[in-house]
Formats: sequence, C-alpha cells, structure tokens
Amino acid sequence: MAVVMKGMEVAKSMKNELIFRVEKLKESGIIPSLAILRVGEKEEDLSYERGAKKRLEGLGVVCETAVLPEDVTQEDFEKKFDELNVSNKVHGILVFQPLPKHLNIEPVKERIHPRKDVDGMSPVNMGRVFANDKKGVAPCTPAGVIEMLKHFEIPIEGKEVVIVGRSSVVGKPLSILFLQENATVTICHTRTKNLEDTCKGAEILVAAAGVPKMIKASMVSEGCVVVDVGINVDEEGKLCGDVDYEQVEPLASYISPTPGGTGSVTSSVLAKHVIESAES
Amino acid sequence: MAVVMKGMEVAKSMKNELIFRVEKLKESGIIPSLAILRVGEKEEDLSYERGAKKRLEGLGVVCETAVLPEDVTQEDFEKKFDELNVSNKVHGILVFQPLPKHLNIEPVKERIHPRKDVDGMSPVNMGRVFANDKKGVAPCTPAGVIEMLKHFEIPIEGKEVVIVGRSSVVGKPLSILFLQENATVTICHTRTKNLEDTCKGAEILVAAAGVPKMIKASMVSEGCVVVDVGINVDEEGKLCGDVDYEQVEPLASYISPTPGGTGSVTSSVLAKHVIESAES
Repeated sequence: MAVVMKGMEVAKSMKNELIFRVEKLKESGIIPSLAILRVGEKEEDLSYERGAKKRLEGLGVVCETAVLPEDVTQEDFEKKFDELNVSNKVHGILVFQPLPKHLNIEPVKERIHPRKDVDGMSPVNMGRVFANDKKGVAPCTPAGVIEMLKHFEIPIEGKEVVIVGRSSVVGKPLSILFLQENATVTICHTRTKNLEDTCKGAEILVAAAGVPKMIKASMVSEGCVVVDVGINVDEEGKLCGDVDYEQVEPLASYISPTPGGTGSVTSSVLAKHVIESAES
Repeated sequence: MAVVMKGMEVAKSMKNELIFRVEKLKESGIIPSLAILRVGEKEEDLSYERGAKKRLEGLGVVCETAVLPEDVTQEDFEKKFDELNVSNKVHGILVFQPLPKHLNIEPVKERIHPRKDVDGMSPVNMGRVFANDKKGVAPCTPAGVIEMLKHFEIPIEGKEVVIVGRSSVVGKPLSILFLQENATVTICHTRTKNLEDTCKGAEILVAAAGVPKMIKASMVSEGCVVVDVGINVDEEGKLCGDVDYEQVEPLASYISPTPGGTGSVTSSVLAKHVIESAES
C-alpha cells in the first residue's frame, strides 16, 4: 500500500510559517497583495481563482481580480496589466493563461516586474532559476512538486527522476529544480521511443503530459514514488490525473492523487511567492 | 572505425553563408562588430581570443578587445562594460569568465542588452531559450554541439541523449536544445549513482563534466555518437577531452576529437550570433 501524498497536508504544514510572515509584514504596515488578471469567464480560470483566493485570504494575503471582457483589445489588456505592474499596492500578478487567441501574452511576459512575477513566467525569472540564482522565481506548479516531496521526506539526491512532459510551465522548469536537488533527471515526451522502459527506470516518476491515465502499471517499478501533475477530465466527466491511479497505486511507495494532490500545493506556493515579493 | 567529427569541417561549411550575410550587411553600411572584454592576461583567455579573432575576422566581422588590468575595480569594470553596452558600433559583447575573484559578473549579466549578449549569459536569453522563444540566444558552446550533429546529419529526434555535466554554460542549456530537437534527454553529474549504466543507455553521449578522460569504454555502447565538450590538460601537459579517446573511438559510430572538435565550432557560432545581432 502506497502512502498517499495529499496536497492538503503539505498546504497545512506550510500554513503556520506563512501566517507568521504575513503578521511580520503587517507589523511594518505592508499587506501582501496579489492581483489576478483574468480575461473572460472560463470555468477553469474561475475554479482556480476560487481555490487560490480562499487559500491566500486564509493566510492574510489580499487577492483582487481584475476582469477584462473576452473581446478586450491587446492595447486595453496591456494597459490594465501595466497599471498593476506599476502599482505599489500590488506585490504579485497572476495572468490566467492561455489567453483568448487574439491576445498576445509575450509583451507582458517580457515586461512584468521580476518580483511581481509570482508564477515565474518571465524570461528573466526562468533564466535565473536556470542559472540557480536565488532571486529567481520558479513557476508555482513545479515548485509545489518539490515542496511535496520534501514534506514527505522523500530523498531526492542521487535519485533517478523521470519526468514525462516537457512544457515550459512544468516539465522543463521541474527538470532544473530536480537537478538543483542533485537528482539524475530524464525528460520524456511524445517523441520518446521507449517510454515504458524509461519510466520503469525511475525511482521518482513525475507525470506532466496532460494525457488522462497514460501512466500504466507496466510503466512503473515497484517502490517508485509517483507524482501526478496532470488534471484532466475522464470519459465519465470526472477529474483524473495523468496516472492510472488504480493500476499504479499498488506498485508505488508514495503516490499523489488527483484531485487533492499537487494542485492543492500550487496555491500555497503562490501565496509564498507573493509574501516573498512583499518582503523584498 | 568511428567517423571523426572535426570542428573545422563544420566551421568551413558555415563559412560561406556567414560571409554572404556579412556582405549584405556591409552593403547597407553595417559592419558587424564584436567587443571582447578581458580582465588581465590569462593564458586561456588569450588563446581563446586569438582563435575567435582569427575566425571572426576571416568572416569579415570586426573584433576589438578592451583589456582591463587584473586589479580593476568593480566600478571601472562596470563603467567599461556600460560603454560597450550603449555603443551603437558594438553588436556583440563577450566577457571572458571567470573574472578575477574580487569582481562580480552578476550586475553585468543582468544589464547586458539581450541582442548584444552573443554568448547567451543573461537571464533573459537563458529564459527565452528555455521557453523556445526564437529571439533567445543560446551560449555558443552548446549551440555548437547541435550545429556539429546537424552538419554530420546525425538524427536527433527520438534519440536517447545522455549529457554528463550540468553547468549553466553547457549541460543545462544543451539539455534544452536537445529537447527542442525532440530527443529524450538525461542529465548526469557527480551525484549520479549509476553513471556507467546511464551512459551505456545513450545513443548520443555528450561529455561536459570537465574531468579529463572520464568517459571510458565501459560506459559507451557500440555505435554510440560521442561528443566531447571537455578541454583539459592531461598528466603529460597535453590537451585532452572528457572522453578517453583511444578507448572509446573503436566503439563509437561518430566521435569528436579534442582538440579540433567542438571547440572549433564555438567561434563560428559566436560569429553567427554577432551577425544575427547586426542584422536585427
């Protein structure tokens, strides 16, 4: 029986320290504050927003959403963004992505103040994380994976880590974070020829491919630590991860469920990044 | 018998196109120009400088060195750098590293104009390369490895690539470049437990660890493509790579020698980056 790595446990253990830091900030008259910039009313955005707002406000972090209409022009989108980017009341900005197709996120990525870039989307932050510069802010999801493993006291140093998926928001930054923890890291993707064997070589397997239940029992060695970053909807309309949980759980030593796994850590990391920005 | 991948062959094949592009620039009154910023008279720097100068000037690219004394202050170092960074006659800046210990490279890395950053040392360029943004400039050495493999028409897509070494100038950026070519990439380093087996799984093995002759025959599968990025001095005072060439060559299908291998491609890539900057 695998130990189930529940995200809420990780979030809880981060809570006390974060509340303490918010109190310290408030004593110096600073109220840490996140601005969410949302275009339109997409259900995924709204659902993430509700969760993040609840988590952040529970820690004493202010969370305000600027909503723009679905058909906002690039100019008005950038104008709103720039307001938040210069405001000294805003410590962090989270722009929901993907944007509607007529909008281009790039100018905003290049322009966001590195300290306000709490989800690590700017090239400057990616480059800093890449160069192991402590000032760098990593995207919240991959940073949450590392938080989760550390919370469960899973050794990372020297381990064979296999990451399935090479996105710029999860797979690639996560590979860098694992390297910094002295893991041996392999990144697989759709063009990987021998995915099954490669995954079987993993001591820690991270699924971040965005393909429902693609990680099967045949791909996992006994005792493997399995972290599922995928959030998908299965054929019955239920949330599921990239891991076929029922098949894989009996083999794993530790496994994160979906829902209730890594996703619940992401918003705590987001809060931490806003607090760090307010402290700096 | 392995095919020996000579760097000069790659450089030669890049030459015609680069000369053509320099001619086009000159027709519009632009002379592509690199400024080298060197502190002190270290032999490695001087040797690299001679090679780069010869290569660049052979292509019609102007190459001027600003030399500062070994004991220059941080302030004077940055002042000189800023001069080059704002000059509209300079299209690229190469700062020799490592600097003497009393100097800090970081402010300069953060401040260099992304287009002038022809060796991809700034966080912005690293972040852009990371995010697969075409504007990103990769460091010359890893970019040269990909040039070399392409020149020899070695397929990369779907291949198992193992990189030994995780430096910010070679190993890490190279892993990203290989991912963009759709390889399955594993990064090893000193903390990797089972280096021999991991290396044996490689179809393309890149040695970038900075340890003389560490890649032995027992670590290489028959038919492997072996790329050596190391430049070291052996016990007899001769230049050698990270690969034990005599042991490994009979097993490899392709192998790059040291000297005369990847190093000779680096300065052609540098020239290309200066020309691209002048064109933009």
